[in-house]
Amino acid sequence: MDSLQSILEGNRLAIARGLTQVENDTPHGRAILNSLFPYTGRAPLIGVTGSPGTGKSSLVNQLARFFRQPSQSVLLGRQLPLRVAVIAVDPTSPFTGGAILGDRVRMRDLAGDPGVFIRSMATRGSLGGLSRTTAGMVQVMDAAGYDVILIETVGAGQSEVDVARLAHTTLVVEAPGLGDDIQAIKAGILEIADILVINKSDRPGAETTERALRSMLQLAHPVAHVFKHHGQVEQLSTNWVADPQAPLWIPPIQRTVATEGEGIAELAAAIDHHYQHLCQTGEWQQREQARLQSELEALLQETLVSRWRDSLPEAHYQQVLDCLIRREVSPWQAVEQLIDGRPE
Amino acid sequence: MDSLQSILEGNRLAIARGLTQVENDTPHGRAILNSLFPYTGRAPLIGVTGSPGTGKSSLVNQLARFFRQPSQSVLLGRQLPLRVAVIAVDPTSPFTGGAILGDRVRMRDLAGDPGVFIRSMATRGSLGGLSRTTAGMVQVMDAAGYDVILIETVGAGQSEVDVARLAHTTLVVEAPGLGDDIQAIKAGILEIADILVINKSDRPGAETTERALRSMLQLAHPVAHVFKHHGQVEQLSTNWVADPQAPLWIPPIQRTVATEGEGIAELAAAIDHHYQHLCQTGEWQQREQARLQSELEALLQETLVSRWRDSLPEAHYQQVLDCLIRREVSPWQAVEQLIDGRPE
Repeated sequence: MDSLQSILEGNRLAIARGLTQVENDTPHGRAILNSLFPYTGRAPLIGVTGSPGTGKSSLVNQLARFFRQPSQSVLLGRQLPLRVAVIAVDPTSPFTGGAILGDRVRMRDLAGDPGVFIRSMATRGSLGGLSRTTAGMVQVMDAAGYDVILIETVGAGQSEVDVARLAHTTLVVEAPGLGDDIQAIKAGILEIADILVINKSDRPGAETTERALRSMLQLAHPVAHVFKHHGQVEQLSTNWVADPQAPLWIPPIQRTVATEGEGIAELAAAIDHHYQHLCQTGEWQQREQARLQSELEALLQETLVSRWRDSLPEAHYQQVLDCLIRREVSPWQAVEQLIDGRPE
Repeated sequence: MDSLQSILEGNRLAIARGLTQVENDTPHGRAILNSLFPYTGRAPLIGVTGSPGTGKSSLVNQLARFFRQPSQSVLLGRQLPLRVAVIAVDPTSPFTGGAILGDRVRMRDLAGDPGVFIRSMATRGSLGGLSRTTAGMVQVMDAAGYDVILIETVGAGQSEVDVARLAHTTLVVEAPGLGDDIQAIKAGILEIADILVINKSDRPGAETTERALRSMLQLAHPVAHVFKHHGQVEQLSTNWVADPQAPLWIPPIQRTVATEGEGIAELAAAIDHHYQHLCQTGEWQQREQARLQSELEALLQETLVSRWRDSLPEAHYQQVLDCLIRREVSPWQAVEQLIDGRPE
């Protein structure tokens, strides 16, 4: 296919068209993914996640700008400037056509830079559909040769966990004043963080936020907790290797003010540090494998269910559903009737 | 079963034990759900959702207290005081044992009131598992005779949509100062709201938040938008019926200061108003049916996949997975090999 070669060569129009096919899950989109797959698995995937109001978009914007700087430095195993792809996952909003607005706002800074590719996507309705579509779009960007792919997601909960499964490095973004300690605990997304970011850290309450995060880290990492008893609790905020044979990554806490560009270089260094950790410990390979396996599981599930439904007589399904709605059978009993008792 | 009768009679210990069985998805738990199912479908389910930091827990607490007041009033078709069940869905947090802490904090106000039953649950790892378990636990509370069930969830995104599917009335809670307009748009959870709550409305920025919500409502409800041109935009914040033949619910915006108890009576009235709307328009039945159907779909999916996996030789799965990890086959190709090409 001509379009495949164009995507591999990094042709923007071909990439954009390919992404649309993949996002819409067309047969052509699946063919593209099958053909591109051998060329994937190269770019580090950086997930950026956190509650609304933490300034994730600005942070992604600033990181992209940082990666684009011409410099002698090497980041993520590559000479700067890096070719950067951004995928921003916005929930579908009939209110705004959110994705388009998002693009415009984000594009202001990076518009016209041929080394940056930005794509916003709406979330799909189906459970699991979002992470599958995102995984496919990331594969297209990866095959197209981008050096790093930033994945921004909104929301808390399952969608964050899915991003963490997809990304090599997950940034969890907090901001001062978004809630009390209990709320922060409830959010419960700290466990997926490779790096904790306190954005808007020039606001009042940054100290409190950092203290709360730090004490949660201590609960999560008993080794770090022991470390505290040696009076060196300060080191908790840096990457600390417990045992060279089994290196342990303790999420560093990075402060940023994305709108001013403050702390961005340090954050990029922490990302690079985590990348090296992944490569040196073999965790990169482990994450790749876990990611591919979870993608396989999701596709299997979807395919099994849709094939079974195609083979089920609609009238039988409707009959059982009617009994369920009249509460003559329970949901579990309905499942048994549909799977075991259906006419051949 | 003795325990069934005890649950139906509202015995707290029996309810608590039944909930644990259902939460852990034991065979006994499924048997309980099958037996209780004919007694469900009575209590109005009120979902309360929003970002961390909006004060959802305090709001749920205050609503429960309000419903518990002895009074001559009728709410949700029942004479006050109502018997209230609360289910708070906290993400699993290895940091804190979050659910237990949550219980303690919440219980302070309502402890010792035999007419209130509170349960916190951790979210399960699997996609869809949370909503299924919650649905089961709600059925136990419903069969136990609680007059109203409050379901509190954390996070934004898919989990909110799942709550909305479960609840008859969904409250989306916002608070001033949690983010700019674009962030609010991105959260994209407004479309599931039956009632919008601006909690902490004594804080600066409440006006701005209300204005933002109102303009989004106008985008969402073209009829309301037309209404604006008649110079009566104020009415947007109340329930406004466009056409008596096809009554339209426009989400009202309610301001509260939950920590002070302000606006709680008005919020309860709005909930009652929505309940009456559901009953009068037949939407109550529609929501019940949609809810049962989506529960059925989720159970079907889970059962189909687990049965298929049980029948699949592990060695074959591992072989295909290895090819996938070596990128010799793509995820879609692996699915085809596993489903179509597996040895009989």
